[in-house]
Amino acid sequence: MISTQNDHSVLVIKIGGTEGVDFQAICQDVAHILQTTGGQLVLVHGGSSEANLLSETLNYPARFITSPSGYTSRYTDRKTLEIFAMAVKGKVNALLVEQLQQIGVNAFGLSGVDGRLLLAERKDTIVSLENGRKRLIHDDYSGKIIAVNADLIFNLLEQGYLPVIAPLAVSQKGEMLNVDADRAAAMVASALHAETLLLLTAAPGLLQAFPDPTTFIPKVSFNGIAQALEVAQGRMKKKVLGAQEALQGGVGRVIIADGRLSSPIQNALQGNGTIFTNS
Amino acid sequence: MISTQNDHSVLVIKIGGTEGVDFQAICQDVAHILQTTGGQLVLVHGGSSEANLLSETLNYPARFITSPSGYTSRYTDRKTLEIFAMAVKGKVNALLVEQLQQIGVNAFGLSGVDGRLLLAERKDTIVSLENGRKRLIHDDYSGKIIAVNADLIFNLLEQGYLPVIAPLAVSQKGEMLNVDADRAAAMVASALHAETLLLLTAAPGLLQAFPDPTTFIPKVSFNGIAQALEVAQGRMKKKVLGAQEALQGGVGRVIIADGRLSSPIQNALQGNGTIFTNS
Repeated sequence: MISTQNDHSVLVIKIGGTEGVDFQAICQDVAHILQTTGGQLVLVHGGSSEANLLSETLNYPARFITSPSGYTSRYTDRKTLEIFAMAVKGKVNALLVEQLQQIGVNAFGLSGVDGRLLLAERKDTIVSLENGRKRLIHDDYSGKIIAVNADLIFNLLEQGYLPVIAPLAVSQKGEMLNVDADRAAAMVASALHAETLLLLTAAPGLLQAFPDPTTFIPKVSFNGIAQALEVAQGRMKKKVLGAQEALQGGVGRVIIADGRLSSPIQNALQGNGTIFTNS
Repeated sequence: MISTQNDHSVLVIKIGGTEGVDFQAICQDVAHILQTTGGQLVLVHGGSSEANLLSETLNYPARFITSPSGYTSRYTDRKTLEIFAMAVKGKVNALLVEQLQQIGVNAFGLSGVDGRLLLAERKDTIVSLENGRKRLIHDDYSGKIIAVNADLIFNLLEQGYLPVIAPLAVSQKGEMLNVDADRAAAMVASALHAETLLLLTAAPGLLQAFPDPTTFIPKVSFNGIAQALEVAQGRMKKKVLGAQEALQGGVGRVIIADGRLSSPIQNALQGNGTIFTNS
């Protein structure tokens, strides 16, 4: 069971923070896969809806930024960062680890700040498009991951733990940063030379015309990603970007699949979902 | 720098969640000690005031239980447990790790649920004394630690990380539990065969007549602990109990010292504080 950095046996799974994704079914499926295949798994999770809910309750509602190229992200000032950390590390991560422990999986929760797992570059200036006008934002604590401490994850795996990673990173200066969980999962999968990156979401995969399920796209080759990026709407855009980054990073394949089913991981690995490959 | 379980070189430090304790000074002192002595440190923290504050803001104020023998603890129903986890893991732990990373210490935050670090027995029934009458409480999620996964901590230390532990434990059934941070620190120190357990607090040490500083008690022998337990008031009772448990567990000495000073750790190690020893 001891893995090296080159044997491509790791499966990285990103669990969405979106409503409808069934965490309990995912945990059950994780336990089943660990028992039956003996493979190595790493979970990365989001927490958008929990962070929005907590922000609302604390009277500091979430705000979002849309970049000129159409990507949406959370506006993360210092107070939002601390609320985000409480939601994703203190709640989503803690409850996921607890659920897994309850069914006998020795889960180990951590964020990208712990042991400098995820090193990111803080975005000094963010351009936000508001009513057609550009605005510059300087007090944002979000970042783009530039390095992953793969040794740390391999060490946890070798000791028999299931790493469960919350989407926080650390800057060179040691600042905590909010990072996109899909792209964090892509960076983790690349660093581990994962065979498969699985992005579970509240849709059957990439749709040509969201939300019409008859427009489901089963397969995207590397050359088709540019077009897929145009088709993708809202949060799906970052998943496709993550797929592209993972393939560029050496991951064997990326699957965007439905996280609302009863055996979502097995279902996806059987070929149900949009599969991105280099060929 | 590689430690084994028998060389007594570890220093375990408990940082209080009480107001007045200067986290920044403690972090600076941690960095200084790591640079100058090359010793191995483990931090355990509380988070009572943050948990109280968050409970208040979320309109679910903290409630406390006093046992017939005079110990006070948080009444932790399921909702309180989740708020407590957000406060101690999502905020106190995250911000401590961030502060340490900012001054170059490669801190690694975890709670007792992660990798089953702290295994605890859930208290099925708690007796609460209310206005002189006993009441039985059955829905409490707090526990008493029965085992520590020392290998996990030694492994983090060997890889060069500074473990920073939040006071949550896991039951045999996998439930997350609230545990007392002072006693968690005592159990961790015992499991690591620590040379010293240092409990930093908002007082110069144990006082014969709190809060009169002229009644400071410099030294308590093992036989004197029963009397010290009677002298100690409020939260100090659990610190003295922790000191007793640590000495019974094989820790060389326990120091209860002032966490409000500019170099609180160095100050304590120089002999300022109440020192508990087996002799």
